[in-house]
Amino acid sequence: MPEFLKLTPPDEARRIFFSHYAPPVDSEWVSLGQALGRVSAALVTAQTPLPAFPRSTVDGYAVMAADTFGAGDSLPMYLQVSGEVAMGAAPGFALAAGQAALIHTGGMLPDRADAVVMLEQTQSLANGMVEIQRAVAVGENVIKVGEDVQAGQEVIPAGKRLRPDEIGGMAALGMCEACVAKRPCVGLLSSGDEVLPLGSELGPGQVYDVNTSSLGALVEQTGGEPRAYGILPDSMEAMEVAARQALAECDIVVLTAGSSASARDYTARVINRLGQPGVLVHGINFRPGKPTILALCQGKAVVGLPGNPVSALVVARMFLVPIIERFLGLQGEKQTARVLARLTINIASQAGREDWVPVRLMQVDGETLAEPVFGKSNLIFTLARADGLVRIPMDVTGVGAGEQVEVHLY
Amino acid sequence: MPEFLKLTPPDEARRIFFSHYAPPVDSEWVSLGQALGRVSAALVTAQTPLPAFPRSTVDGYAVMAADTFGAGDSLPMYLQVSGEVAMGAAPGFALAAGQAALIHTGGMLPDRADAVVMLEQTQSLANGMVEIQRAVAVGENVIKVGEDVQAGQEVIPAGKRLRPDEIGGMAALGMCEACVAKRPCVGLLSSGDEVLPLGSELGPGQVYDVNTSSLGALVEQTGGEPRAYGILPDSMEAMEVAARQALAECDIVVLTAGSSASARDYTARVINRLGQPGVLVHGINFRPGKPTILALCQGKAVVGLPGNPVSALVVARMFLVPIIERFLGLQGEKQTARVLARLTINIASQAGREDWVPVRLMQVDGETLAEPVFGKSNLIFTLARADGLVRIPMDVTGVGAGEQVEVHLY
Repeated sequence: MPEFLKLTPPDEARRIFFSHYAPPVDSEWVSLGQALGRVSAALVTAQTPLPAFPRSTVDGYAVMAADTFGAGDSLPMYLQVSGEVAMGAAPGFALAAGQAALIHTGGMLPDRADAVVMLEQTQSLANGMVEIQRAVAVGENVIKVGEDVQAGQEVIPAGKRLRPDEIGGMAALGMCEACVAKRPCVGLLSSGDEVLPLGSELGPGQVYDVNTSSLGALVEQTGGEPRAYGILPDSMEAMEVAARQALAECDIVVLTAGSSASARDYTARVINRLGQPGVLVHGINFRPGKPTILALCQGKAVVGLPGNPVSALVVARMFLVPIIERFLGLQGEKQTARVLARLTINIASQAGREDWVPVRLMQVDGETLAEPVFGKSNLIFTLARADGLVRIPMDVTGVGAGEQVEVHLY
Repeated sequence: MPEFLKLTPPDEARRIFFSHYAPPVDSEWVSLGQALGRVSAALVTAQTPLPAFPRSTVDGYAVMAADTFGAGDSLPMYLQVSGEVAMGAAPGFALAAGQAALIHTGGMLPDRADAVVMLEQTQSLANGMVEIQRAVAVGENVIKVGEDVQAGQEVIPAGKRLRPDEIGGMAALGMCEACVAKRPCVGLLSSGDEVLPLGSELGPGQVYDVNTSSLGALVEQTGGEPRAYGILPDSMEAMEVAARQALAECDIVVLTAGSSASARDYTARVINRLGQPGVLVHGINFRPGKPTILALCQGKAVVGLPGNPVSALVVARMFLVPIIERFLGLQGEKQTARVLARLTINIASQAGREDWVPVRLMQVDGETLAEPVFGKSNLIFTLARADGLVRIPMDVTGVGAGEQVEVHLY
């Protein structure tokens, strides 16, 4: 009695779903202080060059480089000090041939100055002269106008998760606000007659609702706003009422099915009643997460996850996270979330099915090792012991100790 | 004219500072919904076993395994169906020899049942009997009481950054709240006569305040609460007044020194006036970040950073982040923040100095490559193009193309 007529391979499941799901990115402006971790929703173009004026990168003397040619320890040159450049102001004077100006790091070069001699390579003299002990080339110790960024240059693309670096870059351009993607509201529906809310007194056969908390945290971590719709009894009618409400109020809806076979069956039927095209993928050929459902109803993503908390969290990382990222318009960030490591022991796997195995990472002799953290898929603390998941591809029957594997970090 | 009498190597600088800095962790309780990314401040011990009752991991028939011995496709066994286990309740009956009970995934085994036969390996018969087509061993398809976690077991240590996994684990134990380290308040003081707040109109020689935004985002990312104290003029008196106020109001104080040589000098003097023991490290032998100051005043960490925004952000990642992590009581998380990669081109470096070079990561033919993103250290958008930093150790004069390097991810 197969539960699913056809199991779809994971990559194919994503391809099918995302060929239907490409919502336009909805944006809002937030202050730079609120922008960390948000995803840029518009290309940032520099309105002014950076720097906007020629700056010294050292403390020293601004000079015309030609005046220093030939200078050295044994044959210093002597220049007349025409003044000192105050920080935060235009120098107010230009250099003439044979002149130098005292300048600080970040200071603006006087007109006609084209290089700076480091203070350590000069000697201030009593008669208003400075001894130059080393020749400098044109542009030495100077950042030219636009050397960091030119006016009109594209500096931050749309679809980038904003780090302190991008926020610093926007501040350098004087931007007070960033245009970012709105966070999707993600409705979370748990179900199961045996599932009780946190804080309840458990009777025999009852368990706490894990998924609302763990999936809620994952949604928040990815940049969405979780909204909990509570725990539904094992009833198709109750699920449909709650799912309709969540679909009306949220951008993405996640149903964790009850454990019973009938609940797994009717989740797909409920989703199909919510709107067209309905269920796109039902049943994915990987472990743990076979009963996963990917659906699109009224333009909104609806995901059916296994009720088991460990499976739900693994599947959510593989399918819900990319959906939230697509909603946010996030572009290519995956490369930094993977690490190559050597497996410490053999892992067996069934050919024709993709397996995801939790591992703990260790650094030994400068090499990264991945040690599988075994446990039945129902054990939530198996995941709490792991740093990431190793993918065992569909076409192999396992991976041997010492082989290199790609660990997807949490 | 050397600015610093003695430059301390980076590892030694950390060792000196942290031998003085070990504040006790201050804790608070937050709801699970607020716990993501916070650091646990107390060991979590399971008050009840998980699971709290023997559970089926499949849909099928709960049996006494001995009753199925010898069963197979060609020689099935027949058992009497004594009932169905409802989800979320005790079965209300015990098995007798020769009996089986219909059970769903996650259901509680009846007394005396010790295994479950998968539904696919059974055939329900009309006469209240079930045909068992495969023998099961004791414990097969069952999670025993305490198999995930035993009562009294230590499940989450103090000092762990809480991920969705740990939050799920706490929910499974029925915890509504988590005991986490209080966030440190981190006071940020910018300085420099040339530095203007965002939103100002810039004149010649003036630049925007980048550090308050970029360091604020880094503090937030690490788990602290940034508090901005604005931009100070290049004046020792103004810095001392502001630093005293910040030290009184915050847990950690960060001063970004003005660009002038005198400002760099008096930052250390101001810090030494704030309290004992004062400056512990002044001048660190790495690039970019030579003028870094690490200090302890009245038990609080005070950090002096270079005013240049790129240097300030790199130094803050190397020295301010570990200070915030120590304040939070964070234990060993560093292994997941590094990636081994092969360098695409040669990087030269000065022997006797540690260099940190921004790189972009690429995956090519299953291998991780690190491509240096060059730029003068003053260029803020250099960092925005990078995924992480490569450390060039003190004792080498560079690293060649094709060599393996450790990339510290942002």
